[in-house]
Amino acid sequence: MIKIGIVGGTGYTGVELLRILATHPQARIVAITSRKEAGLPVAAMYPSLRGHVDLAFTAPDQAPLRDCDLVFFATPHGVAMSQAAELLDDGVKIIDLAADFRLQDAAVFERWYGMAHSCTEILREAAYGLPELNREAIKGARVVGNPGCYPTSVQLGFAPLLREPGLVDAAHLIANCASGVSGAGRKTELGFLFAEAADNFKAYGVQGHRHGPEINEQLRRMAGVSVRDESVHCIFVPHLIPIIRGIHATLYARLTQRGEALDLQALFEDFYRSEPFIDVMPPGAAPETRTVRASNMARIAVHRPSADTAMVLVVEDNLTKGASGQAVQCMNLLFDLPETTGLMHIPVLP
Amino acid sequence: MIKIGIVGGTGYTGVELLRILATHPQARIVAITSRKEAGLPVAAMYPSLRGHVDLAFTAPDQAPLRDCDLVFFATPHGVAMSQAAELLDDGVKIIDLAADFRLQDAAVFERWYGMAHSCTEILREAAYGLPELNREAIKGARVVGNPGCYPTSVQLGFAPLLREPGLVDAAHLIANCASGVSGAGRKTELGFLFAEAADNFKAYGVQGHRHGPEINEQLRRMAGVSVRDESVHCIFVPHLIPIIRGIHATLYARLTQRGEALDLQALFEDFYRSEPFIDVMPPGAAPETRTVRASNMARIAVHRPSADTAMVLVVEDNLTKGASGQAVQCMNLLFDLPETTGLMHIPVLP
Amino acid sequence: MIKIGIVGGTGYTGVELLRILATHPQARIVAITSRKEAGLPVAAMYPSLRGHVDLAFTAPDQAPLRDCDLVFFATPHGVAMSQAAELLDDGVKIIDLAADFRLQDAAVFERWYGMAHSCTEILREAAYGLPELNREAIKGARVVGNPGCYPTSVQLGFAPLLREPGLVDAAHLIANCASGVSGAGRKTELGFLFAEAADNFKAYGVQGHRHGPEINEQLRRMAGVSVRDESVHCIFVPHLIPIIRGIHATLYARLTQRGEALDLQALFEDFYRSEPFIDVMPPGAAPETRTVRASNMARIAVHRPSADTAMVLVVEDNLTKGASGQAVQCMNLLFDLPETTGLMHIPVLP
Amino acid sequence: MIKIGIVGGTGYTGVELLRILATHPQARIVAITSRKEAGLPVAAMYPSLRGHVDLAFTAPDQAPLRDCDLVFFATPHGVAMSQAAELLDDGVKIIDLAADFRLQDAAVFERWYGMAHSCTEILREAAYGLPELNREAIKGARVVGNPGCYPTSVQLGFAPLLREPGLVDAAHLIANCASGVSGAGRKTELGFLFAEAADNFKAYGVQGHRHGPEINEQLRRMAGVSVRDESVHCIFVPHLIPIIRGIHATLYARLTQRGEALDLQALFEDFYRSEPFIDVMPPGAAPETRTVRASNMARIAVHRPSADTAMVLVVEDNLTKGASGQAVQCMNLLFDLPETTGLMHIPVLP
Repeated sequence: MIKIGIVGGTGYTGVELLRILATHPQARIVAITSRKEAGLPVAAMYPSLRGHVDLAFTAPDQAPLRDCDLVFFATPHGVAMSQAAELLDDGVKIIDLAADFRLQDAAVFERWYGMAHSCTEILREAAYGLPELNREAIKGARVVGNPGCYPTSVQLGFAPLLREPGLVDAAHLIANCASGVSGAGRKTELGFLFAEAADNFKAYGVQGHRHGPEINEQLRRMAGVSVRDESVHCIFVPHLIPIIRGIHATLYARLTQRGEALDLQALFEDFYRSEPFIDVMPPGAAPETRTVRASNMARIAVHRPSADTAMVLVVEDNLTKGASGQAVQCMNLLFDLPETTGLMHIPVLP
Repeated sequence: MIKIGIVGGTGYTGVELLRILATHPQARIVAITSRKEAGLPVAAMYPSLRGHVDLAFTAPDQAPLRDCDLVFFATPHGVAMSQAAELLDDGVKIIDLAADFRLQDAAVFERWYGMAHSCTEILREAAYGLPELNREAIKGARVVGNPGCYPTSVQLGFAPLLREPGLVDAAHLIANCASGVSGAGRKTELGFLFAEAADNFKAYGVQGHRHGPEINEQLRRMAGVSVRDESVHCIFVPHLIPIIRGIHATLYARLTQRGEALDLQALFEDFYRSEPFIDVMPPGAAPETRTVRASNMARIAVHRPSADTAMVLVVEDNLTKGASGQAVQCMNLLFDLPETTGLMHIPVLP
Repeated sequence: MIKIGIVGGTGYTGVELLRILATHPQARIVAITSRKEAGLPVAAMYPSLRGHVDLAFTAPDQAPLRDCDLVFFATPHGVAMSQAAELLDDGVKIIDLAADFRLQDAAVFERWYGMAHSCTEILREAAYGLPELNREAIKGARVVGNPGCYPTSVQLGFAPLLREPGLVDAAHLIANCASGVSGAGRKTELGFLFAEAADNFKAYGVQGHRHGPEINEQLRRMAGVSVRDESVHCIFVPHLIPIIRGIHATLYARLTQRGEALDLQALFEDFYRSEPFIDVMPPGAAPETRTVRASNMARIAVHRPSADTAMVLVVEDNLTKGASGQAVQCMNLLFDLPETTGLMHIPVLP
Repeated sequence: MIKIGIVGGTGYTGVELLRILATHPQARIVAITSRKEAGLPVAAMYPSLRGHVDLAFTAPDQAPLRDCDLVFFATPHGVAMSQAAELLDDGVKIIDLAADFRLQDAAVFERWYGMAHSCTEILREAAYGLPELNREAIKGARVVGNPGCYPTSVQLGFAPLLREPGLVDAAHLIANCASGVSGAGRKTELGFLFAEAADNFKAYGVQGHRHGPEINEQLRRMAGVSVRDESVHCIFVPHLIPIIRGIHATLYARLTQRGEALDLQALFEDFYRSEPFIDVMPPGAAPETRTVRASNMARIAVHRPSADTAMVLVVEDNLTKGASGQAVQCMNLLFDLPETTGLMHIPVLP
């Protein structure tokens, strides 16, 4: 059994981690921390966990995190990097669900997250936790930076078109994305109130969103260029959907002549043939967010709306494949378990 | 033209007041205050008002409230009573959309709202602003306490059964109600987040809700007994519906033998025959909240699910008939305008 | 492994059965029928099942139902009774998710379902499939009539008050209930369109709903009187909530003097102490439908809003505990498996 | 007063027309037809109209349409063209809310709507009813083809970029759009059920949608090329949002060098300066669908997410500016009324 600590388990990625880990056959949660809720049984905050999780929240300094095999950080940005060195010294592995170990370029991190990066050395060794595109690095890592929810969907959709160079105009990619409201976390901000977000649709972050630089860094790595090379560039426009869970990405890439000659369907099917969590849909399909609800699956369909344009549709559950499910997938890799262990939930539909 | 001031216009009752008053032929809004948003154009906060409302928020102490004919308080509980005396001295009429002038019994106010009542004399002269049941008092008033959203629906539904004594077991009334989320106001509390309130249904306030004592006071007045007389008593259970606007009340009363002999449909139709904002539906109907959306109408249906039980169904828009529309209806009475002036919006369906 | 057939698997109870059975360790689905969709892979209709269910729909007359150990009917009312005798002759057990074997009184069935009952003998031997209240009968049965979704919630809530006689005024029970839209099934009727049901709330079936007689029959059995004895009577009023899954029951019973003397919390906790799928919440709680979403749990809270009134709040997922989960719970009983086998899904929240 | 007939008023565009016309000071509805509902009071189907619309549906052959000044067709495609000639002969003007008079190219109509066009001569004289872009033609028309909901938003967003040639790569436009469910009409199709469309998001029509050719025809006219000239081409991808009303368009165009030199904000503000129903939002804005709910406004924001890309965001209410409101706007033009007559509803927010 893997001894697990969760730092900051009161938010949505926290409760989703608990939902998954509570039935994971190799996981034993030994501590879950919350400064504010110390002493409160987890199931008192989340009655859905009554009978499944018997722990109470512990104050961070009381929690036996250093005795854990693995600590998940489901905390605001900046927390994981402040505690990482100490835990690593004790041989504890770390998966951070926030942004501390996502961006390779510490300067970019500082610009977008408004704080200096306090452990750039650990950042350098951290693995970007998207198993389908970075599996080997994760396996050997001590620290995993779990990807953002939007970046997961965008990378999965563009990867088959970018890994092989020369198929698309990589400098002019478009990622028109939409997310359910839980993507914002369990935050009491006006815009996420029911009476503000329901029966409504809008773009947001139109002047720049933190997931933009993450997407561009990773698309560049994927294309084999430097993380600052503007010859690979994606415009990223997020929208807010009045649903709880789910991300939908509609991706556009202009095909080169070589790209136009390709069988895109076959390209995608080959690329993801052996991936248990990626479902390349049949030609003509339009995946729905509800077909992955509460599961770790991503579904992808590729289209060609005009001769020289590829359009890729991707759906994932932002809390599962876009956050906590993917984190457990990384955990399975870190501990040499079959990658699907504890993650084969069937999506809840309707 | 009536010169109008609005104190605290940033919440949902505030924006609804503006939506109604902006097309009211006799209303001229001269000031709208917000300490926090002073200087901000109202339409910058609520783009729905662009082109319709050109005012900016004013700091409360800068606003020419004393030059108004009427001031609406769309503020938290306790604000109106702190400013009422001064305004009245200047001949300004007051309609408070909060609870300061709703409860007759100041001790009850103090218990439920956690503050002493600071102007019980004004409270005594204030009229309870439910025109269909208290029209004459409103007409002559200087101060109107606008009813709570739930109490409006419950009173309208029970009134025909209670006004004439001896029809029902008045000591055992049940009001099983449900409200859209905007009823909670524009408050950043966890429970009103989209990801908490959507795709969910629950009772709340089950150990006591502020609208309970208001309902009981008024039902007692209606029945002609003292506001503390427990021989008239209603159990009030609110529920939260994942809709933005709308209240639905399902009311139960045990009929006496005399009550059993009545034609309830005729009783209700007669009672509300000349009311422009009350629609008694045909026998067998079940009113839907969307049929009153964004309008000042209430629709009522009366049923008899068993020989000795009356069931009344009431729908209203909690922001309109349950708040700002009713306030404007009171304003029309205060200023001798036809009661429907500016209030004949057709409900928005679908 | 139990060899299972599903007749009529294209609706919501069908796909929910598949979601549950696909991971049930003792279940092997050998056939799923649909006249209209014969030949279509199940996962083409429900992409959520891609990779989990490899079957295609079979025409009813082609399906090897007689070789099954158990056949579920997830069909319209009237289908199960037309096929039951033949299957029983072959030693196949039957669980009907429709109403054919729910109502004890065939005359009541005929009145409410508009068809004669074609096998009243089988009806007489059928067990009413609510394990918490009828476990022993189910264990020995060949045919189970799975309860309606509303009746499940109402019975679970009233049972502790009715099993012991003399605690409440049993002739005047009120069940004010609300259901998500999936309760209506996957039917293309106007009222269940998104643009009709969203952002709306209403009562329906106010002049009589089929679950009313089922509720009354079972409450009478529970109270130990005849199924036609009006001394036990419940007024049942359903409402439609704009959520997909979930039933919420708000139940009212007038307490007798003996009832008033009771500790209701203790009564309920004792009654359900050993039930794995019933969660009696702590005093003061108000269960939310989302806390049981996609699980077989029911949560119950008991309150006393006035000295002589008990109010019980019950939530369940109408497709799981209210239909397919309960059916699998019955299956486990029929085949001597631990009752929770395959049913311990953690509710999906948020 | 304009004497108005409505053919086929039972759908959502029908009830929206009624909502608008019922308070239009120059409109008198003399007949509303429905074969299926003949005799039924309109307000019995739509209780929101109780007290506002006293008409009953008339069988089509009984309705005095030939005595009208104007007939609206809120019917399925193909109905208006079958009745147009006769009405025109009697001097009746026609506004068709379906597609019969939208597409200039009858061959394209036949391909996408599966029926031959039965009156191509009338088609040739019909005006495309988008006042902001085609005002003069509408004023003198006898027949108006009211635009599709998506095409309205896409054209309004691209017009400032296309009217002046050479600003963008017109051959590679992208319109990534999303619509509320009422856009599908009041049709009982599975995909529009609440339990299918709620808590879900998907692209649809990904292999071709009828509004695609309409968009391309009109963008070409706007750019001054032939309606079959592929040098102007827009990829159109619609998505379904779980909201009732609202369209959101996210439009992308690659800027030419000349385009890059432009002040896009000024371009858009100048273009729409005198338009009462077009609101060009301030720089940086992201319009929300709810800010135009139940109004005839469209709000537009223009952005530049990268140096050589323009992104335009457009919101409208699909039933109002996208259908019935725009039809009344055309009516006002046809009858020389101020264009805003009866159309200045303030959007309903929240």
